[in-house]
Amino acid sequence: MSAQLDQLVEKMRRGERRALGRLLTIVEQGGAQAVQALEAVHRYTGGAYVIGVTGPPGAGKSTTVDRLIALYRAAGKSVGVLAVDPTSPFTGGAFLGDRIRMQQHFLDSGVFIRSMATRGGVGGLPRMVKASIRALDASAKDIIIVETVGVGQTEVEVMQVVDTVVVVLVPEAGDAIQTMKAGLLEIADIFVVNKADRPGAGRLVSELEAMLHMAEKAPWWQPAVMEAQALNDVGVDQLFRVIQEHEQALKGSSNLTRKRRERQRQEFFTTLEEEAGVLLKRLTAREGEVAAVLTKVEQGEEDPYVAAARVLSDGAFLRDWMAERGRRPNAGDG
Amino acid sequence: MSAQLDQLVEKMRRGERRALGRLLTIVEQGGAQAVQALEAVHRYTGGAYVIGVTGPPGAGKSTTVDRLIALYRAAGKSVGVLAVDPTSPFTGGAFLGDRIRMQQHFLDSGVFIRSMATRGGVGGLPRMVKASIRALDASAKDIIIVETVGVGQTEVEVMQVVDTVVVVLVPEAGDAIQTMKAGLLEIADIFVVNKADRPGAGRLVSELEAMLHMAEKAPWWQPAVMEAQALNDVGVDQLFRVIQEHEQALKGSSNLTRKRRERQRQEFFTTLEEEAGVLLKRLTAREGEVAAVLTKVEQGEEDPYVAAARVLSDGAFLRDWMAERGRRPNAGDG
Repeated sequence: MSAQLDQLVEKMRRGERRALGRLLTIVEQGGAQAVQALEAVHRYTGGAYVIGVTGPPGAGKSTTVDRLIALYRAAGKSVGVLAVDPTSPFTGGAFLGDRIRMQQHFLDSGVFIRSMATRGGVGGLPRMVKASIRALDASAKDIIIVETVGVGQTEVEVMQVVDTVVVVLVPEAGDAIQTMKAGLLEIADIFVVNKADRPGAGRLVSELEAMLHMAEKAPWWQPAVMEAQALNDVGVDQLFRVIQEHEQALKGSSNLTRKRRERQRQEFFTTLEEEAGVLLKRLTAREGEVAAVLTKVEQGEEDPYVAAARVLSDGAFLRDWMAERGRRPNAGDG
Repeated sequence: MSAQLDQLVEKMRRGERRALGRLLTIVEQGGAQAVQALEAVHRYTGGAYVIGVTGPPGAGKSTTVDRLIALYRAAGKSVGVLAVDPTSPFTGGAFLGDRIRMQQHFLDSGVFIRSMATRGGVGGLPRMVKASIRALDASAKDIIIVETVGVGQTEVEVMQVVDTVVVVLVPEAGDAIQTMKAGLLEIADIFVVNKADRPGAGRLVSELEAMLHMAEKAPWWQPAVMEAQALNDVGVDQLFRVIQEHEQALKGSSNLTRKRRERQRQEFFTTLEEEAGVLLKRLTAREGEVAAVLTKVEQGEEDPYVAAARVLSDGAFLRDWMAERGRRPNAGDG
C-alpha cells in the first residue's frame, strides 16, 4: 500500500486530477488507509486559503461560488471546491441543477470540483470534509471553497474549520432566527443577502446588523453584511474584495495561526472521541465485561448513565480495550 | 451523601415536590452525585409513559401541552413536564409568556413542571433531559411530557428517548423541509398542524402525508397527521385520543419494550463516548504522552486525524488513562 500511496501522492502533486480524485476517495472512506493518506500528504498542507459558503437551500450559494471561482481564476489563483450535498432527497433537484451549471469550470485545469454526499451519520461528515480539505490543500490549490447547504449543526461544524465563513441568505427567508439558533451568527465573517432585488432585503440587512451588534466578536474583524444578486453578477465582486480583506485581517496579525492551531486541536479531540466510540461499540459486540454490562442495561437492571460511569472508572473497559487493540482492523500504524 | 440521598428519594416518593426538585437539580448538574442519584431512583423507574412535543418556535407547543395536561388530569393521571428552553435569547420572550400561562397547573399537586435551560454545550443537554425523565419517572408520575423548541439535532436526540413523538407545525412555516432535514420525519408518530384556521393548513397536511407515504415506517403504526387550534381548544382532544392509540399500539405488541431497550443501549453508548471525551480532555491537560501528541498537532507537525488514530492504537492513551483514573474527581463508585 505505502509505495502505491507515495506514487499516488506524487501524481497528485504533479497535477494529475485522477490521482487527486482517488486520494479524496481514500480519505472519504476513512479507516487505516485514510490515516495513511493523510499522513502522506501532511507535509504539503497549509498553503491554501479556505473559504466556507453556507446558507439555506435556494439562497443562491452555488451561483455565488460559481462567480467567486471565476474571480479567483481571473486573479491567477487555482481553486478547489468541496460541494457538500444535503441529506434530504427533497431538496436535491435545484442543487443538482446548480452542480451542472458549475461544471463549466470542469474544463479549466486550475479548478477541481468535488461533490460529497452526506451519506452516513451526522457525526462522520464534518470529519470527512475536514480531511478532504487537507487533501485538496496538498494538491497545491491556492483557494479552497467549501459549500454546504443548511444552517444546522453539521454546517456549523464544517464552517468551524474554514478561514473565512460566508453565510448566504435571501430576503424572504426571514428566519435569520434559524441562523442564530444554529450558532452561525457567532462564526460568520460575512453575510450576503442574496437576491436583493426582492422585497425585504434592506430589512434583513438591518436585522443582521442589529444582531451582530449584540454578539461578541473579535476586535480585529467586524462581520460584514452586504447585498448581492449573484445571478445578475451584482455584488459578488464586492464579496470577493471583502473576503480578501478578511484574509488580510487574519494574516496581518497572528490570528490565522491561532485559529488554525485551535482547529487542529479541536479535530484531534473530535476524532479521539469518535474513534473511541467506534471502538467501544466493537468492544460490546464481543464477549467481555463491557458486553455484560450492556446486557444489564438493556434488560433495565441498571441505569445506562450509571453503567457507563462504572465501566469507565473500573477496570472492565481497559481490560477489554487492551484485548481489542490487538484485533483492531483499522489501526493506523502511525 | 448516601444516607442523605436515600432520605431525599424517600421524600420524593412520598410526593414532596421540593425533594423532587432537588433530585432534578442533582441530576442536571451531572458528575458523581448525578450517578448516585440515578442509581438510587433506578428501581422506581419504568412506570411513566413519556410523550415528546417539539416543533419550531411559535407553533403553539406550550398551549398544546397545557391542554394535554388538563385532559390527562381529568382522566385522573399525574403529569410531569420537562420544558426545555431554547438557546437563543432572540426567541425567549414568547416562550416565557407560555411558561407563565402553564403555571396555572402549579397549584395542582398532580402536576410537576420543570424548566430546563439549554446552558452548556449541545452535546450535554439531551443526556441531561434523558436523566431528568428518569428522575421524574421515579416520582411515580403516570405521564411525562417533554417539550422542546426547535427542529434541530438536539431536539431529535431528545425525541429519540420518548415513547410518543408529537411534532407541532404551523401552516405558514411552509418549511416542512427543515423538519425532514433534521430527521424528525423518521421519528414523529403524530404531526399536528396547529393554528389550522390560517391559510395553508390543508396544503401542509397533504405535503406531510405525501412525505410520510414515501418514508419507511413501522408496520404497526402509520404516523397520524391532524389539524388543531390549541388556543381555541379545537383538536387537542383528538390529539389526546391519538396519543393513547399510539400508546396502545406500542404496548399491545412488544414494541414498547423493544423501543425502550434500544433507548437504554443508545444512552449507554452516548454516555460512554461523552465521558471518554471529558476524560481525554483532562488527560491532555496534564503532562503525559497524549499531551505531547496534542502539542505536535497544534504546531502543525502532525495531522490531527493521524495523531488521534495513533494515540488510540498505541499504548500512550491507555497508560495516561490508567494514571488519570486514580485522580478522577467525578468517578462514580458504582
